[in-house]
Amino acid sequence: MRTRNSARAPSAADIPHFPSEEFLVRDEAIKAIFEPDSIAIVGASRDPEKVGYLILKNLVESGFKGKLYPVNPKVQEILDLRTYSSVEEISEPVDLVVVVVPAAIVPEVLRQCGRKKVKSAVVISGGFRESGKEGEELEKTLTQIVKETGIRLVGPNCIGVDNPHVGMSMWVGVKKKGPIGIVTQSGLVGTALECWAEKEGIGISKCISLGNKIDVDEVDLLRYLADDADTKVIAVYVEGVGDGRRFMEVASEVSRKKPILALKGGRTKLGIRAASSHTRSLSGRSEIYEAAFRKSGILSVNSLEELYDFSKALSFLPLPKERGALIVTSSGGAGILASDLADKLGLELPSISESAEKRLRQLLPSHCVFSNPFDVTTTTSEAFQLVMEENLNDDNISAFMPIFADPLPRAAEAVKKIVEKTDKPVVVCYVGGAEVEEAEKAKMHSMGIPVFSSPERAAAALHALARRHELLTESLHAG
Amino acid sequence: MRTRNSARAPSAADIPHFPSEEFLVRDEAIKAIFEPDSIAIVGASRDPEKVGYLILKNLVESGFKGKLYPVNPKVQEILDLRTYSSVEEISEPVDLVVVVVPAAIVPEVLRQCGRKKVKSAVVISGGFRESGKEGEELEKTLTQIVKETGIRLVGPNCIGVDNPHVGMSMWVGVKKKGPIGIVTQSGLVGTALECWAEKEGIGISKCISLGNKIDVDEVDLLRYLADDADTKVIAVYVEGVGDGRRFMEVASEVSRKKPILALKGGRTKLGIRAASSHTRSLSGRSEIYEAAFRKSGILSVNSLEELYDFSKALSFLPLPKERGALIVTSSGGAGILASDLADKLGLELPSISESAEKRLRQLLPSHCVFSNPFDVTTTTSEAFQLVMEENLNDDNISAFMPIFADPLPRAAEAVKKIVEKTDKPVVVCYVGGAEVEEAEKAKMHSMGIPVFSSPERAAAALHALARRHELLTESLHAG
Repeated sequence: MRTRNSARAPSAADIPHFPSEEFLVRDEAIKAIFEPDSIAIVGASRDPEKVGYLILKNLVESGFKGKLYPVNPKVQEILDLRTYSSVEEISEPVDLVVVVVPAAIVPEVLRQCGRKKVKSAVVISGGFRESGKEGEELEKTLTQIVKETGIRLVGPNCIGVDNPHVGMSMWVGVKKKGPIGIVTQSGLVGTALECWAEKEGIGISKCISLGNKIDVDEVDLLRYLADDADTKVIAVYVEGVGDGRRFMEVASEVSRKKPILALKGGRTKLGIRAASSHTRSLSGRSEIYEAAFRKSGILSVNSLEELYDFSKALSFLPLPKERGALIVTSSGGAGILASDLADKLGLELPSISESAEKRLRQLLPSHCVFSNPFDVTTTTSEAFQLVMEENLNDDNISAFMPIFADPLPRAAEAVKKIVEKTDKPVVVCYVGGAEVEEAEKAKMHSMGIPVFSSPERAAAALHALARRHELLTESLHAG
Repeated sequence: MRTRNSARAPSAADIPHFPSEEFLVRDEAIKAIFEPDSIAIVGASRDPEKVGYLILKNLVESGFKGKLYPVNPKVQEILDLRTYSSVEEISEPVDLVVVVVPAAIVPEVLRQCGRKKVKSAVVISGGFRESGKEGEELEKTLTQIVKETGIRLVGPNCIGVDNPHVGMSMWVGVKKKGPIGIVTQSGLVGTALECWAEKEGIGISKCISLGNKIDVDEVDLLRYLADDADTKVIAVYVEGVGDGRRFMEVASEVSRKKPILALKGGRTKLGIRAASSHTRSLSGRSEIYEAAFRKSGILSVNSLEELYDFSKALSFLPLPKERGALIVTSSGGAGILASDLADKLGLELPSISESAEKRLRQLLPSHCVFSNPFDVTTTTSEAFQLVMEENLNDDNISAFMPIFADPLPRAAEAVKKIVEKTDKPVVVCYVGGAEVEEAEKAKMHSMGIPVFSSPERAAAALHALARRHELLTESLHAG
């Protein structure tokens, strides 16, 4: 069987039309990584300080729906599960093997997996290319075994795969099902996004940490996530890409279907130096990546928080047709801070129409500021709603940005009513963290309305939506 | 009596040497705003939807240590407190009056305060300059009454004053005593910083919202906070400054003593337009403010979150002598993201010394990355501690940035041990939000060790420390 490395660069367009047998097998193996019916954990441990314990415990606690087979020849059971002395001792079929044994033993484990006809393996273990000469040799051996066995391998030197939709979370035990699909070369970036999404009640669809990515890479995953119904947006952290052309081809296809956001690690001299000692990626010049991202329809982001914020925005919100937005707030200061960033990012704040102003002057107290930002001053959620309602059909206004700056009850209901009436994005900011705010924020998140925690972060999120719209338009014109 | 507006511009240096009687009276009045023995709330209400209820309730619940006199001629008691029909009906002396009646009635209330010899007043009520012609006239009347009575007035159109050290919180009911002094022209900026500080267990020393600032202004408050032992750093949000020269004079003096951070609202065309309709401040050109801030030793920040983060950093951490930092992490990706921002900000990541590397190679597993960022890979808090310990006395390293990227127990203890041994700043980043992280983060905050939630935010905070050091050095050389 030919392997990835020798195969012609596939493009996403190939797949639906000419599903060769090879592609079907390979797709099934990728599917087994995210949706396995059974998982063996080789190196499962009873010691709570060990990763082999953590992963098994998380799989149990996140409620994995398939079968779990801890493999450890030295003990009889772990966490009430019967253990096996090796993968080959398991009589049932095994879809996915998670490997957490010392690096030196990994090759032997993978050979056993090959004999057992396991589809895929996730090698958590570190100690390969990233750790010097000896590790490099070991990694070459792994690559050879992958070629020989046809096993699809994630890692090594990674933190695993999560899919809350099947109750599978290996490293941090997240449970919330959500729309964000994460592909990351750094475990940290994955766990940060996962934990933030879990905490806010947003959730993720999938998270995969690629580590040294000797086999499964961004291209495989973009293709898989493009067709994954649970994934609405794909967030990628990348240090370096092996086959740039193939990546761009597939990303160009996928980004027409779903937004792809990318954070590039190693964009400066110091960053590139750090990246080269991390996964020994050739991280390459920042401008080249920027240009390639843009050409592939990928939205480039500048920080971990932007990756999260923009994923939230693009998962839930419709796109604005133009760059004009109406800011509604009860805080002059919040409106100013949002305006300052909006201006820097090239967003527009058009005046409200004369007719809307006239109507609102009849309905609201005279000390409101009937402008954009619209300052309702009177602090009721209904006033926010009223202002947005009266401007819903203004063609100059493509988006709304309500910035709640006081502990306002019923804010979620007010926003909901607007969201139901329009296909323009409503980018909510709720500043503060007192009781009412937290409750309203949680309510909005449960309604699928993302909330941003500062005026600047809301403005930046709206800008991401506008850029996505522009990328799509460019891509339509180009294609 | 002469009032602020007719007085010669005072500089902070005047005060300790020649305390004229006028200055003493005026200082006492500012003190009464933050540390009153008694507060009358004119417009106190029984209606939970009214601001006059909210403020009284918050003062009761935040545990105000002095006397509270609700003033409302229509009811007998509110929240178990006897009410008074007017300020003049109160037989005991009143230090501070909080005014929450409709704008039209405010002048009469202030005249009563004048007769009662009240020292200071906080006018929460809106409906003045910010709301049009009629309000403008009313505001002129207030200014006239201030001149006649000598009362020091905060506002109008503000959200009050908080001082957790005397159990006083008017708008959001914060309780945590901390080091951050907040002076803001926007209520929102104040409540955002307060709520974030409360939530993280950091706390504030004082918060004052200036609103239309017809009397008490930034200059009065910089002077007061400069001498306030509880305030370690002064965070200012400003849209426009009345007397720029006086502001710069006082800020130059105060910033030698304590760090001043400023967020300028209205730095772009859209922001300036929004500011002019907020407090009708002449917000002026961004570059002029930038230059003035720099000349006065003020650190300029770019967002609400930066204002908070840098306040945290400067409150608790010593300053780095140079720009070289050592990043220690268990996540290659986190190290890269921090390196990228460090590079952009002009921080340096010097190599560790040969001797330190030699020692660490003996103590740590070979798959660590013995570089900067130093990747401990093995995820124990003790490894972080060890790496910092071995480089404590390296002159090229002026700061440490441990970035914890896994749920690591004992992280707080490990950092504490380093903090105790060095006068170099330790800027901690703890990403994620799972249980262990939250617990360790809370522990560090309770130990006075600030924690930042992303690698980029930690790098930016370290940069703020370095800039503060440079500003102080410049100011020493200049003065």
